[in-house]
Amino acid sequence: MKHAAEINIADYRVKPGTQMDLTQWPTWVEPFYDSKESYKEKLKGGIKQLTKLQSLLYAHNRYSLLLIFQAMDAAGKDGAIQHVMSGVNPQGCQVFSFKHPSEMELEHDFLWRTHHALPERGRIGIFNRSYYEEVLIVRVRPEVLKAQNLPESELKRDNFWELRYRSIVESEAHLYRNGTHIIKFFLHLSKEEQRQRFLARIDDPDKNWKFSDADMAQRRAWDQYMAAYEACLSATSTTDAPWYVVPADDKENARLIISQIILNTLSELDLCYPPTSDARRKELLAIRQQLELEKDEKAHHHGKLPDDDLLE
Amino acid sequence: MKHAAEINIADYRVKPGTQMDLTQWPTWVEPFYDSKESYKEKLKGGIKQLTKLQSLLYAHNRYSLLLIFQAMDAAGKDGAIQHVMSGVNPQGCQVFSFKHPSEMELEHDFLWRTHHALPERGRIGIFNRSYYEEVLIVRVRPEVLKAQNLPESELKRDNFWELRYRSIVESEAHLYRNGTHIIKFFLHLSKEEQRQRFLARIDDPDKNWKFSDADMAQRRAWDQYMAAYEACLSATSTTDAPWYVVPADDKENARLIISQIILNTLSELDLCYPPTSDARRKELLAIRQQLELEKDEKAHHHGKLPDDDLLE
Repeated sequence: MKHAAEINIADYRVKPGTQMDLTQWPTWVEPFYDSKESYKEKLKGGIKQLTKLQSLLYAHNRYSLLLIFQAMDAAGKDGAIQHVMSGVNPQGCQVFSFKHPSEMELEHDFLWRTHHALPERGRIGIFNRSYYEEVLIVRVRPEVLKAQNLPESELKRDNFWELRYRSIVESEAHLYRNGTHIIKFFLHLSKEEQRQRFLARIDDPDKNWKFSDADMAQRRAWDQYMAAYEACLSATSTTDAPWYVVPADDKENARLIISQIILNTLSELDLCYPPTSDARRKELLAIRQQLELEKDEKAHHHGKLPDDDLLE
Repeated sequence: MKHAAEINIADYRVKPGTQMDLTQWPTWVEPFYDSKESYKEKLKGGIKQLTKLQSLLYAHNRYSLLLIFQAMDAAGKDGAIQHVMSGVNPQGCQVFSFKHPSEMELEHDFLWRTHHALPERGRIGIFNRSYYEEVLIVRVRPEVLKAQNLPESELKRDNFWELRYRSIVESEAHLYRNGTHIIKFFLHLSKEEQRQRFLARIDDPDKNWKFSDADMAQRRAWDQYMAAYEACLSATSTTDAPWYVVPADDKENARLIISQIILNTLSELDLCYPPTSDARRKELLAIRQQLELEKDEKAHHHGKLPDDDLLE
């Protein structure tokens, strides 16, 4: 009996400086599970490891991790986030979904609205779509860019998109230097698999709400989107904030790959529980003694609040 | 063999207008589980139900739920959040921990900083501590209030704290009318059980970082805190945004009770998947036909991005 192979995450990483040709990247690879059961086992094992690493990340309180998910519609972003991250302490994990920018957001630079959504130290943040939309949908549909009211002199630049990539790359490098490490996932779906999933959404009345006409419009511009992804991934995959192209036609397989990438990245951080200095240890032992000496008190008596003359 | 009883959540609810006497509320009740195993089973069952309800809440997209956790140190807030909510889709659940307010936050009214942390429609938000600190620690330690730079004329009012309760109650009623339902949990811990847990934190080096000297200062003011909680819970438990006093000396039991309260509250909402109108149904069937007719396309060809003359 043939056994499912191990996941080698380097297979999916976009090396900095690569000129991407997405037709050369698979949307399907041989499954890393033998059966539905072994998939569940593997995913569960991943969640268990992730839970431990995330507790440590939280206690260590120096780094944060930002996971960015980008993909065509129905590629399984939501499901991947749900299945890979469910089980992890929600206190250490936060998801932001970026939709159409508000008028107020359009009054600012394109990175502005994502800043306050960045994960605090010790947390894992997830962006379901992100500022990368600004070089994807915005590049495919120039009318969206026009609504952003940029100075004409900026729109005139020949290297307008290269400069957007530069803004992103430099912002991500800045975050890295300040402890926020970023992993970027492109869920790579075939056009045929998207067709099947759209049909399923139409056929299940409980899923109709997930389907919008914008999804079809995007599908019609499929090749342009692929070109925009190729240009974007080529320009913005760096050593410190790499893109991974995850074959997404098999949802279960995609989740196992994503889980492994997160685990490997977290494992490479020098995480530890905050050490207790000798001086602090002594203090704690003094408190310990104090607590030991406390008489077992009965149920509390009614307390008196401070005098309410607040100007005293 | 005696079987564990069912949880009746009304037993823990603070009826509006009650004059609380916390010594009359238990910090421990007979367990709702027979064994460690049955606890795990029950909790798992709760998470499963919660996951379903939360998907529905998300799809329905009319309501949001805000869970507020308040307690003395080491009462198990973090653990309760972790164990009751882990397993739920992190995309539909967000936790905020409120720490010392920043200088900028102090320049605003005491509800200001919590507003932008409220859950969006369809989400479950969790406040680990909240604006209730403003009538708890701030009431016990008037020097904290003094740092808030309120007008003297306001500080002079005899009913200063009643007016803070009123601000809170009216804000919560406003949120309710706009679809955000609030449940407030006070994890009721005995002073002796806190002592045991503090000792455990000192004895486990990996937990030392969780223990701060402020925790001991708060313990010394135990009775005053209880008095502040009594006044607060009496004044702010309403039909639409009730307080629950959860016996917290047994962590596992507390989690089962909290889980049940959340489930009951969610079950009472009129949630459903967004229905598809007949007109929309027709549109979807037209799209379906279009998708059916699409020839199975081969791998995509390279797309051409729109002309880069953005001023055209």
